[in-house]
Amino acid sequence: MTDPPDTTPDTTPDTTPDRRPGGRTARIRAQVLDAVRAELAEGGHERLTMEGVATRAGVHRATVYRRWRDVGGLLVDVIDAAGEIDWQPPDTGSLRGDLTALNREIQESLVVRPSPALALMAASFHSPQAARAQTRLWADRYAQCEVLVERAVERGELPARQVDARSLLIAATAPLYHQLVLLRAEPDPRLPEQAARAAVLAAAAGAFFVPREADT
Amino acid sequence: MTDPPDTTPDTTPDTTPDRRPGGRTARIRAQVLDAVRAELAEGGHERLTMEGVATRAGVHRATVYRRWRDVGGLLVDVIDAAGEIDWQPPDTGSLRGDLTALNREIQESLVVRPSPALALMAASFHSPQAARAQTRLWADRYAQCEVLVERAVERGELPARQVDARSLLIAATAPLYHQLVLLRAEPDPRLPEQAARAAVLAAAAGAFFVPREADT
Repeated sequence: MTDPPDTTPDTTPDTTPDRRPGGRTARIRAQVLDAVRAELAEGGHERLTMEGVATRAGVHRATVYRRWRDVGGLLVDVIDAAGEIDWQPPDTGSLRGDLTALNREIQESLVVRPSPALALMAASFHSPQAARAQTRLWADRYAQCEVLVERAVERGELPARQVDARSLLIAATAPLYHQLVLLRAEPDPRLPEQAARAAVLAAAAGAFFVPREADT
Repeated sequence: MTDPPDTTPDTTPDTTPDRRPGGRTARIRAQVLDAVRAELAEGGHERLTMEGVATRAGVHRATVYRRWRDVGGLLVDVIDAAGEIDWQPPDTGSLRGDLTALNREIQESLVVRPSPALALMAASFHSPQAARAQTRLWADRYAQCEVLVERAVERGELPARQVDARSLLIAATAPLYHQLVLLRAEPDPRLPEQAARAAVLAAAAGAFFVPREADT
């Protein structure tokens, strides 16, 4: 699937010697999304405007309107772009190590100032489109992380009985989001490891077993 | 501490036979905060205006401006009013039962439509005042809930070694907030009990022990 060729005049002359893969369309998208992230970080989504993004990106306004339509379209594309990154879940050799590494990544993304991740979460409360994109991205990331639980079962770290990987992953990561996004606590450097360890102990004790027919 | 007498003309004649405790000042506050909750539920905080609240409450605009100053002041007072309710943590006879009951309350407050709790969380991303009030309210509620852990230790449900009650409470409740507020998942009727059970199993396995001098 290719985009139609973009023939709108651009405010920046095309002097980039090494074009990003995908050519001009991809380059304009990268410029615009970089500008969205920067504008979000500076002023939050309330001050995000099509004009502000076009100016910062050095891209013609008509191009931004035609390709992204409105601010909601920009937010969705920033979130979708995050999903296109070739992200791989950690692989440290133990479930506790993997979940700790995952939690450290989450903590870092929420603690950095300005935090694009936090700005997008705030925006998702006001843009149903952004909320849907965010939900999709998280669903993908949690699905990708299920392999951590599979590997733990293979290594014999968890009982062979079927574990609900998604519930375990939510239990391991939720305290980070709750403390840093909603409770706005000071970041606790021990929390990534503590939350990971608690989830592993609960899992080993059978907290996330999928109910068997016989149990119900 | 008493408020100065309110002498602004009010748009509603004072015909209420049984005044709420605290008299006219308290009655006007109740009317205004009810109006804020209703406006929030209908249009979110973006459409919350001093004028809209005054009209809905049937209270003179000048009164609303003088006592709450701006929309941030209204949000803070709605959150503070929630903190003034004589809320008591559950007491079911077991830690797992108590945490499940607590989680059911949380789930209900987030699932009801419209949800004032959710509207206030959304608002707190855009009003630093509201964010501070929200953080204070949560800190109070979690502090109130520490008794659940104390009772569990007294009953012998948890090892006598010192447990970090707050971390246990966060672990038990965080999955509800994460699933329903950030991930926007469909409510899972089993989640309150599952999250409570996982936290209790983790606690019994030592996940929330306060480190001893000798351990460090």
